[in-house]
Amino acid sequence: MRRALALAVTPGVPVGPNPRVGCVLIDDQGAVLAEGFHRGAGTPHAEAHALAEAGESARGATAVVTLEPCNHTGRTGPCAEALIRAGVRRVVYAQPDANPVAVGGAGRLRSAGIEVEGGLMIEDAQEINRAWTFAIARRRPFVTWKFATTLDGRSAAADGTSRWVSSRAARLDTHRLRALCDTMLVGSGTVAIDDPELTVRDEVDQPLATQPLRAVMGLRDLPDDRRILNDRAETVRLRTRDPEEALATLHSLERRHVFLEGGPTLARAFLQADLVDEVVAYVAPMLLGSGTNAVADLGITTISDAVHLHVTDVHVLEGHEGEDTNIRLTMRRK
Amino acid sequence: MRRALALAVTPGVPVGPNPRVGCVLIDDQGAVLAEGFHRGAGTPHAEAHALAEAGESARGATAVVTLEPCNHTGRTGPCAEALIRAGVRRVVYAQPDANPVAVGGAGRLRSAGIEVEGGLMIEDAQEINRAWTFAIARRRPFVTWKFATTLDGRSAAADGTSRWVSSRAARLDTHRLRALCDTMLVGSGTVAIDDPELTVRDEVDQPLATQPLRAVMGLRDLPDDRRILNDRAETVRLRTRDPEEALATLHSLERRHVFLEGGPTLARAFLQADLVDEVVAYVAPMLLGSGTNAVADLGITTISDAVHLHVTDVHVLEGHEGEDTNIRLTMRRK
Ligand SMILES: NC(=O)c1ccc[n+]([C@@H]2O[C@H](COP(=O)([O-])OP(=O)(O)OC[C@H]3O[C@@H](n4cnc5c(N)ncnc54)[C@H](OP(=O)(O)O)[C@@H]3O)[C@@H](O)[C@H]2O)c1
Ligand SMILES: NC(=O)c1ccc[n+]([C@@H]2O[C@H](COP(=O)([O-])OP(=O)(O)OC[C@H]3O[C@@H](n4cnc5c(N)ncnc54)[C@H](OP(=O)(O)O)[C@@H]3O)[C@@H](O)[C@H]2O)c1
Repeated sequence: MRRALALAVTPGVPVGPNPRVGCVLIDDQGAVLAEGFHRGAGTPHAEAHALAEAGESARGATAVVTLEPCNHTGRTGPCAEALIRAGVRRVVYAQPDANPVAVGGAGRLRSAGIEVEGGLMIEDAQEINRAWTFAIARRRPFVTWKFATTLDGRSAAADGTSRWVSSRAARLDTHRLRALCDTMLVGSGTVAIDDPELTVRDEVDQPLATQPLRAVMGLRDLPDDRRILNDRAETVRLRTRDPEEALATLHSLERRHVFLEGGPTLARAFLQADLVDEVVAYVAPMLLGSGTNAVADLGITTISDAVHLHVTDVHVLEGHEGEDTNIRLTMRRK
Repeated sequence: MRRALALAVTPGVPVGPNPRVGCVLIDDQGAVLAEGFHRGAGTPHAEAHALAEAGESARGATAVVTLEPCNHTGRTGPCAEALIRAGVRRVVYAQPDANPVAVGGAGRLRSAGIEVEGGLMIEDAQEINRAWTFAIARRRPFVTWKFATTLDGRSAAADGTSRWVSSRAARLDTHRLRALCDTMLVGSGTVAIDDPELTVRDEVDQPLATQPLRAVMGLRDLPDDRRILNDRAETVRLRTRDPEEALATLHSLERRHVFLEGGPTLARAFLQADLVDEVVAYVAPMLLGSGTNAVADLGITTISDAVHLHVTDVHVLEGHEGEDTNIRLTMRRK
């Protein structure tokens, strides 16, 4: 299973609506017969890759898969059937498939006389497909909200200046995180004022081949010249001010992980609707004492109503060329 | 020198007005003849310890010392003379002694025909006695300001409640940091309102045997019943509102490292006077969006006037018994 999990996270697989899955076929002695991993929506599943590689030797083998084999004909055939046809004797999987359209693989296998065991290293498998697992269970994308702040919670000085609040290393890191999501979301205010292109670029400032969806939320019409409307990536307009409605639309577009980049009005709306699942804060080593608050007034008046998070990661972003070191703090909703 | 530096930081030496010093006596072949370290003000210096242990074998030896041997008769005799008397042939030291009353040891040794080399691993030696080195050079104590904050820069909610903004682990850690300083400083407002005892306790809540000095700054008279005036530790009143004057008084009391714990008025006064050399922030994983600012208005209106710091340490304080993990960020003045 450890090998199957490693296969699942093979680098280079584009982020998409499907979970990342790895599969290893082993014989009675535990020797590896074949391996496979899923390469993204529309391509064969991990099991199909492994079965194709194994050919006849799959007969009597054990399939170790990070996700319960699917039981439906989507863009590819059902894996449960393929495993049965190939004569596999036993299937061990980590995470059950909670996707309502794919569910039932284990039952199908059992009814064909195959020995089935689920739940092995389930937590590791769930962590690999954290956003997907969440999105399938909750029927909406996982939302990561990113913001930059000084040590004392400011995003800009009183006169609006905000240089150095994000270091170059923090901005590069943001591009890396964007690439791990399938959707970037901003409010129409940010589009109107900042006119960001909202594409993902690599360390040498080149746009990546696969770009996340760009989403703009708000009721107003946008001028045609906005860079977010260019053809460097797909863009969707979410003509609503209701975060729940926006996420429902994105869910119907099979979006699993939204990277919310602001502005403050939109972030507040998501926080107040309790629709921020993860917070990524870039903390700059400076004090302002006044200026724009990084987090807008949420109407919270007493400490027990605070948005309580738990720390999942702390990362030091060394400054380049004399720039400040920033700290990236990642926290999840309790 | 590496061994001498390790000796200098032998655990258990109380924090005091003197630097921590280690000394190793070696023979021509580099074999260790004797070792010594300074055990705190009023006790023999590191060199004296090593010379006593070496006895006659010190003749012709090399003394490796983390600090330039002193040249004055204070609570103990001058080390330069002791090294000359013992017949040491060569002296290698790391950090020059900048203390005006002790300076001149290297010159005294050279004039007695001893070979002297200074500056070896000087940065490591300076780091060990960071506060002392600063205090001697700048003629005032090094100031560490500690505060607790939510991720969005608040110290309390709008109604004044502040539970969980410091975890138990953060409070314990504060006691550990207090013990590394020789003075704890608060404003008379904090004493009037909170009535803290301001002693250092260990993990099982017992007061340490050696307590830092407690200092209260402000003009007002304090009621006799304030816990800070009890006999658990020494207390000094600094009857001024001028941070510079307060530090001058503490310097005359041979204080090297002040741990500034607030309140907000006092912290602001030190920040505005540019007299905060280090910031220790405990960041709690919660968002409030409003409430009391952890850092008071400093009159800064544009980003280039911000208090710029650089990160020196990031530490994750795992929560006990279901409490939140807090992050300790340590930064120094640029
Ligand atoms: N510090 C940062 O990290 C950061 C990040 C991004 C932007 N910014 C700054 O933020 C500024 C823009 O601020 P902003 O608050 O106007 O940006 P915004 O949050 O991107 O956009 C606000 C607009 O979004 C629409 N909207 C969508 N859902 C809404 C809801 N639930 N409630 C209210 N409005 C909703 C409204 O426009 P409609 O009228 O179209 O509905 C509203 O005017 C820019 O100056 C930008 O530089 C800062
Ligand atoms: N969040 C935290 O980490 C933290 C830490 C400590 C305290 N607190 C809270 O802070 C509150 C007390 O606030 P505070 O601001 O009154 O406390 P403070 O800063 O401890 O005391 C302020 C008083 O110090 C004196 N003072 C000394 N130097 C001064 C200067 N340069 N300028 C002005 N005054 C000076 C003044 O009193 P005189 O009239 O005597 O001169 C002034 O009223 C308490 O409720 C406490 O809980 C919070």
